[in-house]
Amino acid sequence: MSYFRPEIERMEGYTPGEQPLGGKFIKLNTNENPYPPSPSVAAAIRSAIESGLARYPDPLARAFRERAAALLGVEPDWIVCGNGSDDILTIVTRALVGAGERVRYPYPSYLLYGTLAAIQGARCEETPFQADWTLDDAFAAPRPDLRCAFLANPNSPTGTVIPPERVLEIAERLECPLLVDEAYADFAPSHCVDLVRRNERILVARTLSKSYALAGLRFGYLVAQPPMIEQFRKVKDSYNCDTLSIAGATAAIDDQDWFRHNRNRILSTRGRMTDRLRRLGFSVIDSNANFVWAEHADRPARGLYEQLKGERILVRYMDYPGWRDGLRISVGTDEQMDAFFSLVKAMV
Amino acid sequence: MSYFRPEIERMEGYTPGEQPLGGKFIKLNTNENPYPPSPSVAAAIRSAIESGLARYPDPLARAFRERAAALLGVEPDWIVCGNGSDDILTIVTRALVGAGERVRYPYPSYLLYGTLAAIQGARCEETPFQADWTLDDAFAAPRPDLRCAFLANPNSPTGTVIPPERVLEIAERLECPLLVDEAYADFAPSHCVDLVRRNERILVARTLSKSYALAGLRFGYLVAQPPMIEQFRKVKDSYNCDTLSIAGATAAIDDQDWFRHNRNRILSTRGRMTDRLRRLGFSVIDSNANFVWAEHADRPARGLYEQLKGERILVRYMDYPGWRDGLRISVGTDEQMDAFFSLVKAMV
Repeated sequence: MSYFRPEIERMEGYTPGEQPLGGKFIKLNTNENPYPPSPSVAAAIRSAIESGLARYPDPLARAFRERAAALLGVEPDWIVCGNGSDDILTIVTRALVGAGERVRYPYPSYLLYGTLAAIQGARCEETPFQADWTLDDAFAAPRPDLRCAFLANPNSPTGTVIPPERVLEIAERLECPLLVDEAYADFAPSHCVDLVRRNERILVARTLSKSYALAGLRFGYLVAQPPMIEQFRKVKDSYNCDTLSIAGATAAIDDQDWFRHNRNRILSTRGRMTDRLRRLGFSVIDSNANFVWAEHADRPARGLYEQLKGERILVRYMDYPGWRDGLRISVGTDEQMDAFFSLVKAMV
Repeated sequence: MSYFRPEIERMEGYTPGEQPLGGKFIKLNTNENPYPPSPSVAAAIRSAIESGLARYPDPLARAFRERAAALLGVEPDWIVCGNGSDDILTIVTRALVGAGERVRYPYPSYLLYGTLAAIQGARCEETPFQADWTLDDAFAAPRPDLRCAFLANPNSPTGTVIPPERVLEIAERLECPLLVDEAYADFAPSHCVDLVRRNERILVARTLSKSYALAGLRFGYLVAQPPMIEQFRKVKDSYNCDTLSIAGATAAIDDQDWFRHNRNRILSTRGRMTDRLRRLGFSVIDSNANFVWAEHADRPARGLYEQLKGERILVRYMDYPGWRDGLRISVGTDEQMDAFFSLVKAMV
C-alpha cells in the first residue's frame, strides 16, 4: 500500500535545474542576474547577523512591506511576503484551489503552475497563445469550477507580454482570481501592479531573484487587496521569510539606482544579443524579459545546448510537446555574451 | 461570492506570536535559545555572501545533508531539508493527507498540526495524554482514513517525552506514517532517529531553531527512508532553502562542541528553574525540553503573564480548552532567570 496521496505518487520525480556546484560555467540557463546585488544588501545582512539569529524573524516582514508599499504606491497591508515567489504561488494555489477543481494558464508557460495544481489534485487547462502571442477570449471565459488563472507576464519561455489593458479585460471577464506572475516585469515596458486597485481578482506576484540579483536569498511578494491578503496569510508558514532575507530584500529595493543601472545594462545587452542571434540565422522572439527564446532553422536546439554545455556554457534547452523546442538563453554580461557568440558562430 | 476554499475561509485569522521589534524584553515565550549560535555560523554566512547571492541555491542542500547524515549515522538520501521544520510539517501533510481524510495528534500539543490539517480540508482527531503523560493504545489504533499521526516528542507545552520503544510500538500498530516532531529532542535523554531504519512509517523532523540557536535562519530537516524522502521531495518548493541558511546550518551542526556546551548550560538552568518555581508554589511538570510548564494554585496564569509583560518579561500564556491553562516559560540564561524570579517572587 502507498502512504502518499495518489496525486503525489502520480507526479514525476523532481528534477532540479542545473545548478553546477563547482567549476567555471557561464550560466545562461536560469535567468539569474549576471550582476551582483547592491552592496547595501551584504551590509544589511552583516548587520542582521550582528543583531542575532537566535530569535524568530518578524512573521510579517514589516520592514520590507513598508518600503515596498512606498515604492509601489500601496499600503503595507496590500502585501504578503514569501520565501521566493514560488512560495507565493504555492500559497495562492493552496488557498484557492481544491481537489477536482480547475486552474488555467497559457501554453507554453512556467511549468510550476501545473505542478502546484497537481499537488492539490486539481485539473489543468492549458490555453495556447495565439500566433502573435496574444491570448484570445478562451483564456478569459468564466466557468464555475475554475478557481485560479495564472499568467506569467512577461511569459517564460517566450519573453512576450500581455499589455495591462488586456489583463484588466481578462480579469473582468473571469470570475476567479487572476495571478499575474511578474517575475520578469522589471525588464518589460509595463506592469500590472496599478490594476490591483481596480479589480480585487487581480493578484500580482513579484520576486527579487531576477531584477534584484537575489535568487540565492529567496524573497518574493504578492500585491493584492487587503481582504485577499488576509486570507493568503492564513496559509503561509508563520515564519516563512528569515531574518537575513528580510534585511537583504529591504536593502535591495531601497537601492533603486543600483537596480536601474543593472536593469538598463541587461536591456542593452538583450538588444545586441537579439541582433547577433538573428544575424547568425536564429529566429528570436522579441523579448520583454532577461532572456530570449531562440531557434535555428538548420541546427537542432538540443545539439546546440549539448555542444555549449561541453564548452561550459549552460543555456536552457526546452521542449514543449505540441508547440516546439528551442533554447531559452538568459541575458549575461556583454563579456559572457561575447564568449557565447564566439562559440555559437562556429556551431551554426 | 468567495474566491477561497471554504476550509480557508473558516480558519481563524493568523495571529503571529509576540516578537517585539524594539525595546528591551527578556523573551521567555517562544523557546528560542538564550545563547548565540556558534561563531562559525556568522563566518560561513559572510563567506557565502562573498560567493554571491545572484545564483539560485542548491535545491538539494547537499552540503548540509552530507554533514547531517554523517552526524546521524544515515546516508544523505535519508534527509530532505526545509525552510524551518514548519516547512517540513507542511510538506509531510500536503504529501499524505487529502480532503476528508484524517490526522491524529495528542492533546495538548503543538497547534500547527491542526492548522495544517485544516488547510488540507482534513479532519483532526485529538487523543488526550494519560495522567502520567503516556499515550494509550487509542493513539496507536489504525483506521483506514487515518493518513498521518503527529507526535511532538518532547511535547509542547508539557515538555514530556514518550520513550523510543513506545514510539516504535505505536508506529508498528499504526498503518499510516508517524511524524515524530523532534524540535526539542536535543534537550531530552532520548530520540527516535535510530528508529527510522526499523520502520518505514517513522518520520523524524528536526529544527535548528532551538538547540542550535538559529530560529532567525529557518532551517529544519526530515529523516526518513529514501523511498519516502523521494515522494516528499516532489512536494517541496524547488529552492525552499536559501544559500545563506544552508551555509549557516551546515556550520552550526559542524560545531558540536558549541552545541553541547550551550545545551548543557540550558539543562542546568532548567533544573534550577524548576526547583525555584516549585519552591514558590508552582506546580511544574518535569521537562525534557528548553521550557517548562508551570501553574500556580493561587495565582491565575493569565494575570501572572500580564504582570510579567508589564515588567518587560515575556512568557507564554496558553489556554487549552478542556485541559487547563498555564505558563510555558522558556529556559533563559541564569541572569535572565534571576530577573524573572526577582519579579515572580513578589507576585505569588
